[in-house]
Amino acid sequence: MIEMRDCNPFLKPKSVAIVGASDRKTSSGGAVLRNLLLTKYPGKIIPVNPSGGKILGITCSKSLLEIKKPVELVVIVVRPDLILQIVDEAISSGHKNLMILPGGFSEAGTEGQIREKELLRKTNSAGITVFGPNSAGCIHLNNKLPFAATFLRDLPLGGKIALISQSGAISEEIIATGNKNNLPISTVISVGNAVHLEITDYLEYLGEHEECNCILLYVESINDIEKFSFIARKVARKKPLVALIGGRTTEGSNAVINHTGGSSMTDNQASSFLKDCGVIRVKSLRHLLLAAKGFGFFPQGIGKRILLISNSGGPGVITTDRLIDSKLEMPPLPENYSVDLKKILPLEAAIANPIDMLADAREDRFEATFNSALKYCQNNYDAVLMIHVVPFMVDADPIIKVMARLAKKSSFSIFHSMMGTLENKNKWFQNMENSGVAMFDNSEDMAESAGILAQYPPLKRDLEKNI
Amino acid sequence: MIEMRDCNPFLKPKSVAIVGASDRKTSSGGAVLRNLLLTKYPGKIIPVNPSGGKILGITCSKSLLEIKKPVELVVIVVRPDLILQIVDEAISSGHKNLMILPGGFSEAGTEGQIREKELLRKTNSAGITVFGPNSAGCIHLNNKLPFAATFLRDLPLGGKIALISQSGAISEEIIATGNKNNLPISTVISVGNAVHLEITDYLEYLGEHEECNCILLYVESINDIEKFSFIARKVARKKPLVALIGGRTTEGSNAVINHTGGSSMTDNQASSFLKDCGVIRVKSLRHLLLAAKGFGFFPQGIGKRILLISNSGGPGVITTDRLIDSKLEMPPLPENYSVDLKKILPLEAAIANPIDMLADAREDRFEATFNSALKYCQNNYDAVLMIHVVPFMVDADPIIKVMARLAKKSSFSIFHSMMGTLENKNKWFQNMENSGVAMFDNSEDMAESAGILAQYPPLKRDLEKNI
Repeated sequence: MIEMRDCNPFLKPKSVAIVGASDRKTSSGGAVLRNLLLTKYPGKIIPVNPSGGKILGITCSKSLLEIKKPVELVVIVVRPDLILQIVDEAISSGHKNLMILPGGFSEAGTEGQIREKELLRKTNSAGITVFGPNSAGCIHLNNKLPFAATFLRDLPLGGKIALISQSGAISEEIIATGNKNNLPISTVISVGNAVHLEITDYLEYLGEHEECNCILLYVESINDIEKFSFIARKVARKKPLVALIGGRTTEGSNAVINHTGGSSMTDNQASSFLKDCGVIRVKSLRHLLLAAKGFGFFPQGIGKRILLISNSGGPGVITTDRLIDSKLEMPPLPENYSVDLKKILPLEAAIANPIDMLADAREDRFEATFNSALKYCQNNYDAVLMIHVVPFMVDADPIIKVMARLAKKSSFSIFHSMMGTLENKNKWFQNMENSGVAMFDNSEDMAESAGILAQYPPLKRDLEKNI
Repeated sequence: MIEMRDCNPFLKPKSVAIVGASDRKTSSGGAVLRNLLLTKYPGKIIPVNPSGGKILGITCSKSLLEIKKPVELVVIVVRPDLILQIVDEAISSGHKNLMILPGGFSEAGTEGQIREKELLRKTNSAGITVFGPNSAGCIHLNNKLPFAATFLRDLPLGGKIALISQSGAISEEIIATGNKNNLPISTVISVGNAVHLEITDYLEYLGEHEECNCILLYVESINDIEKFSFIARKVARKKPLVALIGGRTTEGSNAVINHTGGSSMTDNQASSFLKDCGVIRVKSLRHLLLAAKGFGFFPQGIGKRILLISNSGGPGVITTDRLIDSKLEMPPLPENYSVDLKKILPLEAAIANPIDMLADAREDRFEATFNSALKYCQNNYDAVLMIHVVPFMVDADPIIKVMARLAKKSSFSIFHSMMGTLENKNKWFQNMENSGVAMFDNSEDMAESAGILAQYPPLKRDLEKNI
């Protein structure tokens, strides 16, 4: 029997106290409060600061001891040497859930190790659950109770993707790059030293909640391999888990020892362990983000059979290479599709997979080629990938309009890439993404994202076979 | 004896006629003329259009036959079915160098193949040299005679990097992404069908000219393997050549047949052939761009020994993994550097390679750590890579000021990455790049760029041994 801790008070607290809230711009407690207000958190907020008064318009308590009815969650953002005292106050005032963001614990030499032991002793005997310490905090933008207790610079856009991370900096980068690429991330959990709540607790929680349909993991070390495996296998049957393991190389693994404590698996062991858990393994932050981009549109993944439709030769060639590298398949065109394309496309076009419609293709050629695919290829391919280069003499606007319209009535998973820096790119991307098309700045990224997505269905089938 | 054709009239013509120049916005001939004017080409320009009059303020000739003294280069941008007639006119009016941009030749079915044969027959018997056809043109922004005959959307920024490409779309993408990342590209040659001038001619030319110090290649097929090998080995002794081969996979190679005609090497053969030629092989457009970024700063490449200085644990770990994947080395810190760092850094910092200065590091910690490296590590490392995450509570501005100042007096090759979307990023990047530091948006790109650069010195040494 595997016992899990309850994440609800940390992800959906109905009331929060922030110990260390302040007006100062460089104050972490202030940043936490500002982020909480930015999310429009609807619960009760009590800033705690010995000076009292108001912070950002909200009346402070001078200490936890002053709060009559305990709040559901106490977020602690004060200097490390003051934290144990705040913990004492939380205990005497009956608070049960503490989120401790600052470092200064087991990662910080002998003094910190003593502090962490003392933290555990106090909280365990009082029946208190701790999130962190040494964490960048937690963001959970569910519709009913959006919540963010973090000093990370940006908040994600919201959506159904979650990140559980053993690095605050990597959380920050995923949010920043995610926002730039319109990734639907709602939940970001920075695990920190994980004295109580750990990866598996969050994983179990997010696995059971429909508001999350894909979970990203950045992992340097797993405490309890069996527990992780049990939970991951359960969750991965419902939604894709994608993991970046930090410390794959000997040198990287040494760096892990200095960061979060060290892992004991070799690179190959980690690969087969994750596969057995039903977890998709990626080997770079870039691929973790490409996974999020793709699963954001197609949370159940895609099949392996790709139709690549391009309007340019060179990108068609290198993208084909990349698709095959990514273990995808490019079956030849069905006969009746080829026959139709011969009527539609100019003589010098390539009627093969990849199709090259040529650079001078306008909306009519795009439409006819895609319509014919809808007619003849539904059983032959799982996804259609488009390479759309924009030569100066062809207006991309009507092409995008046509493709967005067709995408809505298509049963293919559609990926579309537009290379280059184009004035109307944002508008075009938005239009296509509103129609359910995953948009990419370049065709190699598109191919790699498709390759990651195609790994999920077979992993899921394997898990279902071996319940 | 290998005979080469003279590229001078195509890259540095003193006078140019543009047949098919027009005022229309969607006219390719008009685009070529506009780009020529944008470069401030100082030579003589004669637009040729049967309507006569003026285009963009320049007086037209009605036909090549009207031009009394032949120009050095005739650029032809008319409908394919009109081209042979223009070639006839070029012959009778004594023009010797033709750049033909439109397609409609050997790539375009039987009719096109007949047209290409006829083109060759006419020009060979008249002693005329052809650039193209079926090409996006040529850009050569040397200081004295900047020149661009192309309908590509953007012009590069200028600098010492050249691209020779068998795909116009890939040329366009390299310019667009290159401009976004401040790549010093001056020369872009779209090879096209290469009926006369081919990759080796351009390679030889650029190899001999100091105004170019790094050559990128996008190659789908090489006509004469021995000739390529001879020229590449000669050039690679002087400057790095970096090649992306399109059609590495069986499927990609089939796509090449539909694009430029097909190559006969397997993937492994291509790898050992390129290695023997002294050419660095990359396997993605992304890596071709990362090569350009790195060689733009360090055209002779770098050694393998990397010191990684970071202010965050997770990115330090994954970047270490990426560096080792890229076949770089991360030797341990020299004893006296470690001793010094213990005085400089907080207790919980990681004093190892990677160094973790911790997220709260300000300019004093950056400066002391780097200064100490200058003092104790000059013989131990070839390059210093920096990971600079910007937490909300630390101002990056003074850090950048300090690092830019130190970079100027350093003999290390310095790479610096700043993740996230930061308000002042452009300014910071500019400041650092002015001081000779290669700047990257993320640390994985930085590591991969360093990995590519470290391949050049051993290739060069091998070539020098076996002259």
